[in-house]
Amino acid sequence: MSQQAFTLYVDDLFSSPYSMSAYVSLKEKAVAFDMQKIKLGSQNYQPDYRERSITSRVPALTHGDFHLSESSAISEYLEELLPPPGHTALYPADRQLRARARQIQAWLRSDFMPIRSERSTMVVFYAPVKTPLSIAAQQSAAMLFQATDSLLAEGADHLFGAWSIADTDLALMLNRLLLNGDAVPEKLARYARLQWQRPSVQAWLALDRSEYR
Amino acid sequence: MSQQAFTLYVDDLFSSPYSMSAYVSLKEKAVAFDMQKIKLGSQNYQPDYRERSITSRVPALTHGDFHLSESSAISEYLEELLPPPGHTALYPADRQLRARARQIQAWLRSDFMPIRSERSTMVVFYAPVKTPLSIAAQQSAAMLFQATDSLLAEGADHLFGAWSIADTDLALMLNRLLLNGDAVPEKLARYARLQWQRPSVQAWLALDRSEYR
Ligand SMILES: [Ca+2]
Ligand SMILES: [Ca+2]
Ligand SMILES: [Ca+2]
Ligand SMILES: [Ca+2]
Repeated sequence: MSQQAFTLYVDDLFSSPYSMSAYVSLKEKAVAFDMQKIKLGSQNYQPDYRERSITSRVPALTHGDFHLSESSAISEYLEELLPPPGHTALYPADRQLRARARQIQAWLRSDFMPIRSERSTMVVFYAPVKTPLSIAAQQSAAMLFQATDSLLAEGADHLFGAWSIADTDLALMLNRLLLNGDAVPEKLARYARLQWQRPSVQAWLALDRSEYR
Repeated sequence: MSQQAFTLYVDDLFSSPYSMSAYVSLKEKAVAFDMQKIKLGSQNYQPDYRERSITSRVPALTHGDFHLSESSAISEYLEELLPPPGHTALYPADRQLRARARQIQAWLRSDFMPIRSERSTMVVFYAPVKTPLSIAAQQSAAMLFQATDSLLAEGADHLFGAWSIADTDLALMLNRLLLNGDAVPEKLARYARLQWQRPSVQAWLALDRSEYR
C-alpha cells in the first residue's frame, strides 16, 4: 500500500508553513513523491481539485486514490504508513511526549494570530518587513518565548531528545521573528537556526521561488 | 498508569467548543474525572496554572502530574491510554478513515472564521442572535455544507460508520447555524440533531450554566 504513488499539493509560492510541514514530513520519510503547485484562490477552487480535496485546501497529499489535507493529519498518516524504525520518526515514541508534540502542532495552528499576521511567512521565504511589532504581537511573542523556553532544555537541539515535526513547526514560528530581525532570546534563536539547517528544511528552502521574487 | 487521577480544566462558561470536545472524549472513555472551571483572561494566566500548562490554554487535561492542552491532542492521548475495544473508540480503526477524522478536526479548528465570529458558541449554549450572516459567513457556510454533504453518506448517522469525535466536532460547527435558526440543508440538520442527542454531548449540555444566564 505504501508503494502507491505520492503527490504533494502545495501553494505555488512555497510560502505556506503548512505546505512546508507536509513537505518536510515526506522528505523525512525518504519516499519519492511528485509535487504539484496550486495557485491559491483559483486552482484550489477548480472543480477537479475541489471535488477530490473536499475542502479545497492545501497542502494535500494524494496516496493512490486517497486525497488527504491538513498538514498535521498528513504527518500522522505518514507516520502510520511508514513507521519507525524503518523510517525516521515524525513523532516521539513516548506517549506523553507524543501528546506534547501534538499539542504544540495544534497550538501553533490556532494561536499567535498577531505574529502570523504581522510576520507572514513571506518574511521567512522572501523578504523582511520594516513595520515594528504591535503591542499585541509583542505580547504574543512573549508568550511564544516563555512557552518555548519552558519546553526546551538548556543546550538541547530538539524539544524531545530526537527531532520531531513539532521542532520544524516551532522553528518556523520563531523564524517569523528571527529572520525578520526582531529580537529573539539567544537560547531560542540558536534552536531555530539549528532546526533551519536540517536537510529536509533546506530542501524546502532551496525550491525555486524566482518566479515571484 | 491510566489509574492516575484525571482532571479536566474547561472554560467557566462551558461555552468553548474545544472544552466540549475534550469533555465528550473523557465521557466516552467512561473514566472518572474531576472538572475545574477556569475563568479565561485571568485564572489561566495565574502563575500556578501558567507554569503547569506552559501555554495557559484551556481545555487541559491533567493525568497524574502530566498536564496536556489542545483538545485534539487530548483526544489522541485518551485514545492511546484507553484504547478500543476496552473503551469506546474516539477515532476510526481504518488508517485512511482515521486520517480523514484528523483532517476534519484540524480543518474545523483552522477554518470558518466568519462563522465562528458571527455565530459564536454563545449562540449554541446560551441564546441565538438576530444579526443576519454576512456574505463571507454565507460563503463559509456554503463550503461547510458542500464538504459535509460530500463526507456524509445519505441517511448515515455518522461520518465513518461508527461514531468518532470528528462527528461531535462537526455537529458543533453545524449547530452554530442550525440552533441559531440559520438555514441548514435537511440532510445535515438531521445529522447535527442526531449527534446532539449522544449521551456524552447531552451531559455537556446539562452542565449548570445558570450563573451566566
Ligand atoms: Ca488542507
Ligand atoms: Ca538531538
Ligand atoms: Ca489548550
Ligand atoms: Ca451509526
